[in-house]
Amino acid sequence: MTLDKPPITDQLNLCRVGIDTYRENVAYLHRDCEIYRAEGFQALSKVEISADGQRILAVLNVVDDPNIVSPVQLGLSEQAFLQLGLEDKQAVRIDHAEPPRSMDAVRRKIAGDRLSAEDFTDISHDIADKRYSKMEIAAFLVATGQTGLDRDEVLFLTRSMLESGDQLNWDEQLVADKHCIGGIPGNRVSMLIVPIVAAHGLLIPKTSSRAITSPAGTADTMEVLADVKLAPESLRHLIHKERGFIVWGGTAALAPVDDILISVERPLEIDSRGLMVASILSKKLAAGSTHLLIDIPVGPSAKVRKMDNALQLRKLFEFIGDRLNLHLEVIITDGRQPIGRGIGPVLEARDVMQVLENDPHAPDDLRQKSLRLAGRIIEFDPDVRGGQGFAIARDILDSGRALEKMNNIINSQGRNKHRIEPGSLTYDICAPAKGTITSIDNLQMARIARRAGAPMDKGAGVDLFRKLGDHVEKDEILYRVHAEFMSDYRFACVLAQKDIGYTIEQTI
Amino acid sequence: MTLDKPPITDQLNLCRVGIDTYRENVAYLHRDCEIYRAEGFQALSKVEISADGQRILAVLNVVDDPNIVSPVQLGLSEQAFLQLGLEDKQAVRIDHAEPPRSMDAVRRKIAGDRLSAEDFTDISHDIADKRYSKMEIAAFLVATGQTGLDRDEVLFLTRSMLESGDQLNWDEQLVADKHCIGGIPGNRVSMLIVPIVAAHGLLIPKTSSRAITSPAGTADTMEVLADVKLAPESLRHLIHKERGFIVWGGTAALAPVDDILISVERPLEIDSRGLMVASILSKKLAAGSTHLLIDIPVGPSAKVRKMDNALQLRKLFEFIGDRLNLHLEVIITDGRQPIGRGIGPVLEARDVMQVLENDPHAPDDLRQKSLRLAGRIIEFDPDVRGGQGFAIARDILDSGRALEKMNNIINSQGRNKHRIEPGSLTYDICAPAKGTITSIDNLQMARIARRAGAPMDKGAGVDLFRKLGDHVEKDEILYRVHAEFMSDYRFACVLAQKDIGYTIEQTI
Repeated sequence: MTLDKPPITDQLNLCRVGIDTYRENVAYLHRDCEIYRAEGFQALSKVEISADGQRILAVLNVVDDPNIVSPVQLGLSEQAFLQLGLEDKQAVRIDHAEPPRSMDAVRRKIAGDRLSAEDFTDISHDIADKRYSKMEIAAFLVATGQTGLDRDEVLFLTRSMLESGDQLNWDEQLVADKHCIGGIPGNRVSMLIVPIVAAHGLLIPKTSSRAITSPAGTADTMEVLADVKLAPESLRHLIHKERGFIVWGGTAALAPVDDILISVERPLEIDSRGLMVASILSKKLAAGSTHLLIDIPVGPSAKVRKMDNALQLRKLFEFIGDRLNLHLEVIITDGRQPIGRGIGPVLEARDVMQVLENDPHAPDDLRQKSLRLAGRIIEFDPDVRGGQGFAIARDILDSGRALEKMNNIINSQGRNKHRIEPGSLTYDICAPAKGTITSIDNLQMARIARRAGAPMDKGAGVDLFRKLGDHVEKDEILYRVHAEFMSDYRFACVLAQKDIGYTIEQTI
Repeated sequence: MTLDKPPITDQLNLCRVGIDTYRENVAYLHRDCEIYRAEGFQALSKVEISADGQRILAVLNVVDDPNIVSPVQLGLSEQAFLQLGLEDKQAVRIDHAEPPRSMDAVRRKIAGDRLSAEDFTDISHDIADKRYSKMEIAAFLVATGQTGLDRDEVLFLTRSMLESGDQLNWDEQLVADKHCIGGIPGNRVSMLIVPIVAAHGLLIPKTSSRAITSPAGTADTMEVLADVKLAPESLRHLIHKERGFIVWGGTAALAPVDDILISVERPLEIDSRGLMVASILSKKLAAGSTHLLIDIPVGPSAKVRKMDNALQLRKLFEFIGDRLNLHLEVIITDGRQPIGRGIGPVLEARDVMQVLENDPHAPDDLRQKSLRLAGRIIEFDPDVRGGQGFAIARDILDSGRALEKMNNIINSQGRNKHRIEPGSLTYDICAPAKGTITSIDNLQMARIARRAGAPMDKGAGVDLFRKLGDHVEKDEILYRVHAEFMSDYRFACVLAQKDIGYTIEQTI
């Protein structure tokens, strides 16, 4: 007995199921499918779906409702359907998926082995191909987390992540960029640094992320003012015209493995030094940066809580940067509280514009931090004398040239003509007693803003009226919550009532 | 402004979505839901759904098709709907789920800390409450995997898993049981040990698992002959009448955390000593065992490959058993190849009945191993002199008393009147050359049987015609694949053609 071609009855009709399964491919098979035994597949981690030389991997869900898929159909969730790239009703077949081969390396890592450059290449390749389930990604993250990677392994991981996607090239000797390791709400300095540095004449093409678990990313905030979803082709024209832009990096396929890892890392709240460095540097190198300033805020509720940890992290950034030919400098900043007043896209955009407009009410901490960082980047310019960057940046800002550059960038990207206001549902959190503000919890303020609807609802967020060291009377407003949706409003208020995030030391 | 009761508009109509999401709760919310912002929840690991004091956690999928859920509905996958335990159309609300608090302990474990008994209790409690996502379970498994647990931690984990569910009590001094750590296809010795030991008079209530990633569990095989889904209430009557039974353990909620961990551990193929010991012993203690024989097969394709690893594992079993008041003995057996001839429920049941019937064609390795293990269990009986167990077991088997006992047990559980035959689609794998069989790959034989449809299709599997050490001529049949479904037949044949699983050393 021999096996020839598989019988024609292997085929099911493809159908798109209108379910968005968030970065995980899901296939839907009817329990009474006459061709495949749905339950036989289910305990496995993945199935392979193929037709016409295309193939994807997916987790299988068994369906009992013929309105979702019938016994002769194979349904795919929206992501999976798009990834397979075929038409509805096309004939597809299912197969047992082999577990990704690079999981052997992950298991070796779990057992305590050091992995080779080749191992990391294989792992990144399989992750980019979506061969890893969320469980397998979690296994990789935990195995490599914390002290599990030595610095050579971080280098291998960074390089493999970089090579997993496209790489931009701006055809200039000096391409500046800036990145903050995150965790400080309201920290929108990039939107000030880009116009200042571009006005000075350095090239600064800023591809930013959207917020994943924070209340606003730079892309979310810039979107209040201008279009950020620009096609990769139009970026080249834009950069030559303005020397700078602030767009969403997701339209280019830069280090796609990074996005997949982050989608599991964030909900698990696993933060590891090695993964953070590999994530940031692979993304920046893929975006074509040659000179990078890294901001590490330190504070009791920041990602890095102690100065010696910041120093260790700096060394690791420097080690990897040097080996990947990236001119990299690290700056350690005050991360004890949010920067500026607003938290959430509209409120943060307001702060940024106030600084650019030299408004006397502009938040000074945002202005000072932006000037300090912009100054350091300007000093990447070989024609600028060491120590002169800050004064140059200040001149550009004070003279209105930064505002003019920002307006040009906004117009070039496409100005958002629709002015968005802060959310109209408001709730004021007041001081429970008279005293001095001795701490503001970054994490709790971010959570409240996020529950209020940020960054989905641009106008949602938190507006801080008082900051560290301020003296307050009892019942004086500390901050105002803004929301657009009633359910989000309620979520945010409940959370703020549970823990206001401020500590007030009573004055005798 | 103060917050009173949440507004009435918080409520959505519950609906059951006919999708089986295999041990993970999934909630379905329409993208245009007017009450909650679907996308705002999606990046989070979990949402909480509540009504009437009931609450469950679920992962959120966003739906675009109003035929699945409408903008005023909240859909739940079948598991989630059953767990919540409410009626269709009942009003429910959604909330942000806090990540399980015990994840802090998991993160400490990732960082290299030793966890306390209380930590393990909290973790087991949260897992039993289904507060962990699959990603979080994977994180726990990897963090505790391999050398990550010392023996006190294994003890804490075992105890916490035991306490996570119900515990049976048979009101006898000596409740015998036997467990194999697994990995050897065809190893159905339990179905011989139970009637032999029960015929001797010892109490042996065997609650068995179904196969998860293997081609047959004892429950799957017993089900070929008798009902195994007995209500926990009827077990007490059964055991008093027969002194033994073989049922599926899933009807009682014994160590439920174990089942949840296994559902992630198996597809990830993470096997760790500590987790294995905690899993087996928590299950056995929950089932009310007082005297347990553990079988550790050793061989190049068994779970344990080397004798010194088997010895380490034995020490760990003994350490935990002693501290949990379980009389435990470990036996190390030959795991170089499958036991008996059949792999798959019907074929294995045939082997078992041949041994019980003293059929001259009965596989001798299955008979000998069963007698050896049954003999050791019989020696748990204080009235049996050390070393006499084997002879007693052999007498019981040879005299037909074991067969008689098995028939009584089958009748008491409810004999399956429908005789099931091996699958009618067959494919013979023949020797590629003349020679001597020098190895049989347990894993590959299990995979082929599983692809053929076992244990879902009871008649599917593999029937071994030749075993280790046998001399074969070219083209002589090595084994026969049986399948019931064309698609499974094809999967199994393709896999067997890729790697037959046998090594034949050519004779000169």
